Amino acid sequence: MPIALEIAANIPLFKDFDEPSLKKVANLMSCKSFQSHDIVMRKGDTADSLAFLISGKLQVVDLSEEGREIGIHFIQPGAYFGELSVIDGQPRSASVISVKLSEVAFLPSGQARELIFHHPLIAKRLLTHFAQIVRSASSQRTLLSIPNAFQRVFAQLQTFVRESKDGQVIEGLPKQHEIAIMVNTSRETVSRAIHTLMKMNILEKQGTILIVRKPEQLKHVATVGVDDPNTNKK
Amino acid sequence: MPIALEIAANIPLFKDFDEPSLKKVANLMSCKSFQSHDIVMRKGDTADSLAFLISGKLQVVDLSEEGREIGIHFIQPGAYFGELSVIDGQPRSASVISVKLSEVAFLPSGQARELIFHHPLIAKRLLTHFAQIVRSASSQRTLLSIPNAFQRVFAQLQTFVRESKDGQVIEGLPKQHEIAIMVNTSRETVSRAIHTLMKMNILEKQGTILIVRKPEQLKHVATVGVDDPNTNKK
Repeated sequence: MPIALEIAANIPLFKDFDEPSLKKVANLMSCKSFQSHDIVMRKGDTADSLAFLISGKLQVVDLSEEGREIGIHFIQPGAYFGELSVIDGQPRSASVISVKLSEVAFLPSGQARELIFHHPLIAKRLLTHFAQIVRSASSQRTLLSIPNAFQRVFAQLQTFVRESKDGQVIEGLPKQHEIAIMVNTSRETVSRAIHTLMKMNILEKQGTILIVRKPEQLKHVATVGVDDPNTNKK
Repeated sequence: MPIALEIAANIPLFKDFDEPSLKKVANLMSCKSFQSHDIVMRKGDTADSLAFLISGKLQVVDLSEEGREIGIHFIQPGAYFGELSVIDGQPRSASVISVKLSEVAFLPSGQARELIFHHPLIAKRLLTHFAQIVRSASSQRTLLSIPNAFQRVFAQLQTFVRESKDGQVIEGLPKQHEIAIMVNTSRETVSRAIHTLMKMNILEKQGTILIVRKPEQLKHVATVGVDDPNTNKK
């Protein structure tokens, strides 16, 4: 069943796309519902479509050889996914599961490739999206090369900082075990590092957000580190 | 000075590109020579062009906040570079220096963008190139999440293995300190890990190449690890 034109028009990838092209694409797409915990896409499968989350919430799940979860991230409504395999024809690089009841629209691979490679607007958006991923992968590699675990946590926290009307804040901080995976350390180290910043009055917790009380000092400890008080009690 | 058509035709990005388009692009490009150690591109600069290495050898250099070198890699003749900034308009993400006398051709950003976004063949090649980078960044993240350093080295070595007529081999192994940077450990650990594999007859050195004598066992130790004989002397 094709998806409604209004739904397709709300997908950011198609913003400002000419209406005839959009109509054509919407007619080629099909929609499917997924219950919580359903598998939407399976790592290793052949690519048969480019997918768009219409409503609900999905999670990208990758497992290490030993079955540990890695690189947790969520897909929000409006986003597309599965573009890697559509572009290079290689198997799916990760699995995607639904976190709650979700509607997903699928555009078959052949048509998706035609859409991507023959519409400058779409090619540009995908290339820009990839450029961002490549940049953030490269700065994450820089971050991971910091030998001190505390400093890696500080540098990771620094990447979450946003300007708000109340000054610098960290909203929607990932869970401690998620940060631990990002910076290759233990959850306990993440906990101790954040605690250290609070004791130093660099960060202050207000409900679900962290206020950066001393932005310059956060930058400083992210760059040169701070002694871990638990390994350096003189 | 525009570059010669034969030179442009030899650039892999332009393979099978129609001759009128190729001529137009060649006419828009300009060539420049760089001596050894010259800076070809500087991190943080605004993008003014897409670059192509015509001859010689270049090195991409990124430095951590404290000035340590990260993510060493080389650019070989025929390759393009500087595409990230051309696509997203953000500053250069890394510096590029010449390792020996090199000829570099530059295509101004505006024309490069026109070339990329309006030619399906070129858009497809760039997207495929990015897809590969994203996949390898993601498998490198998986690798870095292995808590045991020896096992990370084994898993990294596994990624270098190629089939040859003499069975599985590793050719052009990066230097030990380069592997150390890739897997976030010390050069000494890399040295000990490789030595361990040789003692176990899994790897054998023959001149500049490593022969994988026991491919299954290499896969095994990359997946589940092996006791580090120096930290586990019972």
